[in-house]
Amino acid sequence: MAIRAKSYRYTISVRWTGEKKGALTADGKPPVEVATPPEFKGHEGIWSPEDLYVASVNACIMSTFLAFAGRAGLAFEEYESEAEGLLEFVDDRFVFTKIVVRPRIVLRPGEERAKAEEILHKAERNCLVSNSIRTEVALEPTIV
Amino acid sequence: MAIRAKSYRYTISVRWTGEKKGALTADGKPPVEVATPPEFKGHEGIWSPEDLYVASVNACIMSTFLAFAGRAGLAFEEYESEAEGLLEFVDDRFVFTKIVVRPRIVLRPGEERAKAEEILHKAERNCLVSNSIRTEVALEPTIV
Repeated sequence: MAIRAKSYRYTISVRWTGEKKGALTADGKPPVEVATPPEFKGHEGIWSPEDLYVASVNACIMSTFLAFAGRAGLAFEEYESEAEGLLEFVDDRFVFTKIVVRPRIVLRPGEERAKAEEILHKAERNCLVSNSIRTEVALEPTIV
Repeated sequence: MAIRAKSYRYTISVRWTGEKKGALTADGKPPVEVATPPEFKGHEGIWSPEDLYVASVNACIMSTFLAFAGRAGLAFEEYESEAEGLLEFVDDRFVFTKIVVRPRIVLRPGEERAKAEEILHKAERNCLVSNSIRTEVALEPTIV
């Protein structure tokens, strides 16, 4: 008997609303406005596909960290992370060549920095968005 | 003299807000709540990293289509697109193996279906998020 692992489906819709703008929707979730960014002749102040891509990596690493930290019983007070995606023109097209992710974690007294760092690197290696992309993901953590 | 093509940087922050939730922020843009999805012991009704990943591909194809359609002078009235991402357990880890993107375009009278379809396929090939990922992107357009 073959053991079949679970698979999941994620369905997201986008509807053009005029100019270079659209509305992103997912069942039961608040809509998010999206637009081409200003550097590609779009709009200021609206989430772009480029932003969403970098956001998905940053949030996936946090989400995976939360799961692993929970299992390992790591006690922390804060987690915040800035991710910077680099879009470069390579071989005649734009590609995200690198995303630098800079998590800053504030541990509870008595917790070991090395343990937190190990969990964080494990989270990056197991993040399902990182697993799905060609872009290099580099982790630069600060643990306090 | 070397000609250096432009590069761009996208900076996105995420801050843990408790449980399996966080707040995504980008300078000058409205914050977006993010959470681990229910199937990974998270929360209902909140955008997940998985959703954002599929959304970035769907929105990128729309955004690229809008640019190419503008340049080609294609006149259309509606563009909406449903994208379905398939997350599978492969070689001991979760990976997005495929995203099926189903754009539905309503053309203005007199426009040719074949022209719209050609622009759409060109948009998929040139979408900078598609260019950056391992996940297979399949286009299933409907042109009316």
